[in-house]
Amino acid sequence: MTSKFFAIIAGVGAGTGRSVALRFAKSYPVVLLARNPQSYSDIVSEITSSGGQALGISADTSDADSLASAFKTIKDELKDQHLAAAIYNVGSGFAVKPFLDFTPSDLEASLSSNARGLFNFAQQTLPLLLSSVSASPPHPPSLIVTGATASVRGSPRFATFAAGKFAARALTQSLAREFGPQGVHVAHVIVDGVIDIPRTKQWEANGGVEDGKINSDAIAESYWHLHTQHRSAFTQELDLRPYVEKF
Amino acid sequence: MTSKFFAIIAGVGAGTGRSVALRFAKSYPVVLLARNPQSYSDIVSEITSSGGQALGISADTSDADSLASAFKTIKDELKDQHLAAAIYNVGSGFAVKPFLDFTPSDLEASLSSNARGLFNFAQQTLPLLLSSVSASPPHPPSLIVTGATASVRGSPRFATFAAGKFAARALTQSLAREFGPQGVHVAHVIVDGVIDIPRTKQWEANGGVEDGKINSDAIAESYWHLHTQHRSAFTQELDLRPYVEKF
Amino acid sequence: MTSKFFAIIAGVGAGTGRSVALRFAKSYPVVLLARNPQSYSDIVSEITSSGGQALGISADTSDADSLASAFKTIKDELKDQHLAAAIYNVGSGFAVKPFLDFTPSDLEASLSSNARGLFNFAQQTLPLLLSSVSASPPHPPSLIVTGATASVRGSPRFATFAAGKFAARALTQSLAREFGPQGVHVAHVIVDGVIDIPRTKQWEANGGVEDGKINSDAIAESYWHLHTQHRSAFTQELDLRPYVEKF
Amino acid sequence: MTSKFFAIIAGVGAGTGRSVALRFAKSYPVVLLARNPQSYSDIVSEITSSGGQALGISADTSDADSLASAFKTIKDELKDQHLAAAIYNVGSGFAVKPFLDFTPSDLEASLSSNARGLFNFAQQTLPLLLSSVSASPPHPPSLIVTGATASVRGSPRFATFAAGKFAARALTQSLAREFGPQGVHVAHVIVDGVIDIPRTKQWEANGGVEDGKINSDAIAESYWHLHTQHRSAFTQELDLRPYVEKF
Repeated sequence: MTSKFFAIIAGVGAGTGRSVALRFAKSYPVVLLARNPQSYSDIVSEITSSGGQALGISADTSDADSLASAFKTIKDELKDQHLAAAIYNVGSGFAVKPFLDFTPSDLEASLSSNARGLFNFAQQTLPLLLSSVSASPPHPPSLIVTGATASVRGSPRFATFAAGKFAARALTQSLAREFGPQGVHVAHVIVDGVIDIPRTKQWEANGGVEDGKINSDAIAESYWHLHTQHRSAFTQELDLRPYVEKF
Repeated sequence: MTSKFFAIIAGVGAGTGRSVALRFAKSYPVVLLARNPQSYSDIVSEITSSGGQALGISADTSDADSLASAFKTIKDELKDQHLAAAIYNVGSGFAVKPFLDFTPSDLEASLSSNARGLFNFAQQTLPLLLSSVSASPPHPPSLIVTGATASVRGSPRFATFAAGKFAARALTQSLAREFGPQGVHVAHVIVDGVIDIPRTKQWEANGGVEDGKINSDAIAESYWHLHTQHRSAFTQELDLRPYVEKF
Repeated sequence: MTSKFFAIIAGVGAGTGRSVALRFAKSYPVVLLARNPQSYSDIVSEITSSGGQALGISADTSDADSLASAFKTIKDELKDQHLAAAIYNVGSGFAVKPFLDFTPSDLEASLSSNARGLFNFAQQTLPLLLSSVSASPPHPPSLIVTGATASVRGSPRFATFAAGKFAARALTQSLAREFGPQGVHVAHVIVDGVIDIPRTKQWEANGGVEDGKINSDAIAESYWHLHTQHRSAFTQELDLRPYVEKF
Repeated sequence: MTSKFFAIIAGVGAGTGRSVALRFAKSYPVVLLARNPQSYSDIVSEITSSGGQALGISADTSDADSLASAFKTIKDELKDQHLAAAIYNVGSGFAVKPFLDFTPSDLEASLSSNARGLFNFAQQTLPLLLSSVSASPPHPPSLIVTGATASVRGSPRFATFAAGKFAARALTQSLAREFGPQGVHVAHVIVDGVIDIPRTKQWEANGGVEDGKINSDAIAESYWHLHTQHRSAFTQELDLRPYVEKF
C-alpha cells in the first residue's frame, strides 16, 4: 500500500460495514477488522478486484490485547501512512426479550461490543488520528461511530441493547468534546430503521414499501460526508431513517 | 429559465443564505427571497455571471399575503418547472438581554421570522414539493430549515430568540413526520457557532483561532448533502459547529 | 386577605388549574386568572366555602395591557403580601389537522396562549417573585409552567400546537437559568397524557383502563412538591404520565 | 420486623443513600445494602435508635451471586412482607482524566457499578415489586435510580463515567416502559451538582455560596415524592440541581 493515508473499518460484513468500506476505498486503502475472516474476505476481494487496496485483519475489538495485536500488524503493514478515518461499526446481534428473561451474559454481550469494543478501538485509533492532524490530510481525521434507535431510546424488551448503545453514545460525545479541539472529528450516527441486507430480507418493515429499509450505500454516503466536513462545521450527531419510518 | 427543477432560498444575504444559493445554483436555477433587493441583488449577479440562473424576489415571509404574492410570481416565471428544494434561512437579528428588559415586540420579532415565516413558507412550498415527488426529481424534494443553538437550549438572556427557534424546530419535526412518508425530506440544521461573515469580523469566537467561526460554504455543503440523501436514509436533524466550539 | 404570601394561578377551569388552585389554597390565598368569570367563579366558591381565600380576576394573558390591568388590581388587593408561587396553566384548545389545512390563525392561537401569554405573565410575576426572595418565604418563590407531550415532540398534525408548546419550554428554560441564581425556582412540567376531566370523559385513552387518564389532583401534588423543593435541589423539568401511557 | 411493606436502598454511606434511608425509614422498615458494613452500620443505628427498623446487609450489586445471596437473606428475614420501594444509588468513585489515560479497568469499574449492578438489582427487585402491586400497597411499588449530569452529557474527561451512567439511564427507561403498565413505577433522577457531604467539604462549587451544594435530605424528599405519586401521574425522570448551578 502506497497512499499516504488510510482508513480502518471495524465491524464489516453485510450492510453498513461493507458499504462504508467500499465507499472509503474509493479514496483510501482500507483496513477491515472483523472477528472472522469470512466477514471481510469477500469485501477485500471486491475492493482489490476493482483496483482498490484492502487489508483484512481478524480481531475482537472487545479484547484489548487482540485489538492491540491487530494494530501492531496495521502499523507494520502501513508504516509511513497516516490514519485518515476510523469507523466503529461493530454490532453484536442483540436479544429482544422481557427484562426478567435476560441473563447477565446478554448484558455483557451488549456492553462488550458497544462500549468496551469502542473504548479499545478509540484508544488505538485516536493517537493515530491525532498524529494525522499535522500530516496535511485531505479532510480532518475522523472517528465515526454507528449508533441505533436504541442509542437514544430505551424501549421495552431492549434493555441490554440500549444499555450498550447509550454507553457508546456517551463515549462518542466525550471524545468529540475532548478531541474536536485537537482537530479530530468524532461523530455519532443514529441508524433508525432496518437495514436492507440478506439477513433482513424477510423482515417486515414499513409495510414492505419500496425503500422502507435503509440502503447501506446511502448510510455510507453520509459517513463520507461527515468525513469530508470542514473543521469549522463538524456534525457531532445525525440520524438516518427511511422516509416512511415512524419516529 | 429552462431547467426542469429549481430551488428557493428564503433569507439570503451574507453567510448561509448566500452560500446555499451559490451551492444549489450549481445544479438548479434558484429563486432568492429577501425583504430587500439589496440582500439578493449581488448574489443574483454573482450566480448569473458564472453561468447560473437566479431570480430575486422581495417578500416578507412573516406576511402571508406578501409571500403568496411572491409565489404567484414564482409560478408565473417558472411554470412547467418543479420545486426541488426549499431552504428556510430567514433570521431576524435577535436581542440578547435580561428577560425583564425585553418588550413584547422583541418576542414578536422572533416569532415572526422564525415561526410565522416558516409556517407561511412551508404552506407555500410543501404543495409544490409534493407535486415534484412524481416528477422524477434527481433527489427527493427537500425542505431544509436553519436552526441555531437556541433551537435546543434556552440560554439566559436569549428567551425571545429561543422561543422562536424552538417553535421553528417543532414545526420542522411535525412536517418531517407528516411529509416524509409522502416523499418530501424535511430537515433541520442546528448551527451552533458564530458564522464567519463581515458582520461578525470583530466578534471574538473561540479565542480567535483559525476556523473558530463557521465557514458558510461548509454549511452549504451539508445542506446539499441533506438534499441529495436517498429516501431510505433521510436525516431529520444534524448539528454544525467549529471543531473548537464548546458544547 | 391577611396572609403574608399568596399564589397566582393563570388558566383555571376543570382539570389542572382547578386542582392546583385547591392545592395551593391549603397554604396560601390564591388569585385565579381566566378570561371568563365562569372559569373561576365555582373554584373561588369552593375554596372560600372550605375556609380558604380566593380572588378571581378576568384577564387575557396574551394581551399585555389586559394582564397589566389585572396585576394592578392584584397589587391593590394584596398590598403588603408577597407572591410565593405563580402557575402558568393557560391552554387554548388546539387544532389537530394536516398541516396544509392549518390557517395562520391556528398558529397565532397557539403562539398567543403558550408563548405570548407566558411571556406577559412572566414579566408581571418575576419582579414580584424576586422581591419575595428576601421576605423569608416558607419555600423558594416559584414559577411553574404546564407543558405537554407537544413541548418536546412535534407530532404529525400537531404542528401549531407544538410550535407554541416548544416556545413556552424555551422561555421556561431561559428563565430558569436567569432567575434560578436569584432564588426563584422556574420549573416546567410535561403532562404526557389525557387529563381526566368532564370534557375528556368520552375520550378513549389507554384502552379505558382504570387510571389511564391523569388525575389532575395528582398533577397538583407534583406542582406543590416542586414549589416546596429546597433551593439546593431544584427540579427544572419533570414529566407526568399514566402508568399505562406509551412513550 | 412486622410492617407489611419494606424498602431496600442499595448504595448507602454519606449523602443520598443515607438521607433516602432515613426518609423511607419514617414509613417502612428499610434494608440497606453496601459492600462494607461500615457504610451502613451507623445508619442502621441512627434509624433504630429513633424507633425505626433497619437491616444492613453486605453485598456487591455488580456480582450477581453476591446479590442473590443478599436477597435470599432478605426474603428469609422479611418473609410475609412486601417490597414497597427499591432505590439504586450505588456509585463507584469515578476517574476524571484525558481519554488516553483511562485504562480498561476504569471503564469496567463504571460499567460494573452503574450498568451491571443496576441490572442485577433490577432482576432481584422487580419480581418482588410486581408481586407487591396486588398487595394493596400505600403507594405504587417503585424502583428509583440515581443518575448524574453524566447520565445525559458526555463531558470531556468523563468518558468512562458517562458510559456507565448513560447505560443505567437506558436500563431505567426500558424498565419504565415495560413495568409501568404492570403497576411498578420506575424513575430516574439526574443529580446535577455536587452533594454536600464530608468528602466534598473542600470542593469549590458555585463559588462557595450558601446552598451551592445539594443537600442530600432535599434529594430524599424528591425520591419520596416520586414514590408517593399516583399511578395516573408517574414521573419517569426529573433533574435536581442547586439554584446557582450552571446548566
